[in-house]
Amino acid sequence: MNLLLLEPAEIASGSPVTVRGERARHLREVLRVVPGQAVRAGVIDGPLGAVTVVEVHPDRVQLDAGTLAGAAVPERCRVDLLLAMPRPKVFARLLSAIASVGVGQVWITGATRVERYYFDCHQIEPGEIRRHLLDGLEQARDTRLPEVTVHRSLGRLLEGSLPAAATRLVADLDPGLPRVAQACPAHGRVIVAIGPEGGWVDAERALLAQHGFVAVGLGGRVLPTDVACLVALGLVHDALRR
Amino acid sequence: MNLLLLEPAEIASGSPVTVRGERARHLREVLRVVPGQAVRAGVIDGPLGAVTVVEVHPDRVQLDAGTLAGAAVPERCRVDLLLAMPRPKVFARLLSAIASVGVGQVWITGATRVERYYFDCHQIEPGEIRRHLLDGLEQARDTRLPEVTVHRSLGRLLEGSLPAAATRLVADLDPGLPRVAQACPAHGRVIVAIGPEGGWVDAERALLAQHGFVAVGLGGRVLPTDVACLVALGLVHDALRR
Repeated sequence: MNLLLLEPAEIASGSPVTVRGERARHLREVLRVVPGQAVRAGVIDGPLGAVTVVEVHPDRVQLDAGTLAGAAVPERCRVDLLLAMPRPKVFARLLSAIASVGVGQVWITGATRVERYYFDCHQIEPGEIRRHLLDGLEQARDTRLPEVTVHRSLGRLLEGSLPAAATRLVADLDPGLPRVAQACPAHGRVIVAIGPEGGWVDAERALLAQHGFVAVGLGGRVLPTDVACLVALGLVHDALRR
Repeated sequence: MNLLLLEPAEIASGSPVTVRGERARHLREVLRVVPGQAVRAGVIDGPLGAVTVVEVHPDRVQLDAGTLAGAAVPERCRVDLLLAMPRPKVFARLLSAIASVGVGQVWITGATRVERYYFDCHQIEPGEIRRHLLDGLEQARDTRLPEVTVHRSLGRLLEGSLPAAATRLVADLDPGLPRVAQACPAHGRVIVAIGPEGGWVDAERALLAQHGFVAVGLGGRVLPTDVACLVALGLVHDALRR
């Protein structure tokens, strides 16, 4: 935990803020905080700064979050992800990884090569998704929670939900394709689409192309979904830093 | 499994080659091969091509590997990795991921912030390492097995084992650092160093700098080791494709 994340409701009631459970344990046993100590902290979807430890008890830690309210709110990541639902175990792990690399919005979609039962798994429940995303934010010291929505049909998702103004990329295998850096804009948002294990079928590729998704190459190697996702997000972030 | 990998000893005795166990099960149950069918195959550290199914039995599959011997051997990846030993569970998963992204040589090292007991885990045994690397090669359709060696001391590793001719990069956090693409050469090998959770300590940074490692930025976010590793390898591979 590189950042103590507080819920908006926790600071709404004014200082001091009391944290219990896992966060209190981490403060006491890992960070070994003492009264007066400043701790890097943030409010989910809110400011990022520091709080001051007031009291340390066996079951709770009291914090002065007075300075936090005035701190700056980090910018939302400019990179969004359209992701064919991976295997549930991979999905859970990937959520915290993509939240650490940085992502704004995430559309999870069905696809021909996505097993339907993946959508019945507990990992796809909103509370579970949020928990894994928060892990990633704590790791990366960010407060901006990615918005994740689940869509069973790629067609309906493409017809409706995506923001019109973003540059749309779909990661693919062909070594002859343009590189991510060549396709990334200097300004504005980027959506990158990552297919399922085994890839999109031809009809899905055509549908993505019809909706403005430009194929970019991650190299000639067949990557697992989760690896492809992290490599693609890394490349887009890097291109946007130019 | 996107590639059937054979051991050099399996093709040394001439055709037909008989595979059993997991590979036979995959051929029968997942690929549902029939006699006469061509299957993408390769020899570990050898040629990459195809074999032809000769006979399918409940416990084994016979293959004609005659054309495989004459196929081309893929080039060894130009990217090497110096990696502070991560948590054993992460390490095992990461091995197959880095083998899929592509890596030539891997030096696993101890560091101040690496727990010593990590080096006593079963995941670090050569057979276990090899098994995970082969998973990654099968995924990525490559035959070139990364060479992994384990070093408890970063100092001794830097004094002795690294190839002199490679460009040396160490991934770091500072957003002001040069990007990977700016530091990558047009030709020759690249070694990228990834620190432990919590980072290298100052003495280790100084030691890496003394040995020619140039700091490059992966952006301002604190990434977990495994994510940093995949993002960094992805960026180096992308830079080398220019």
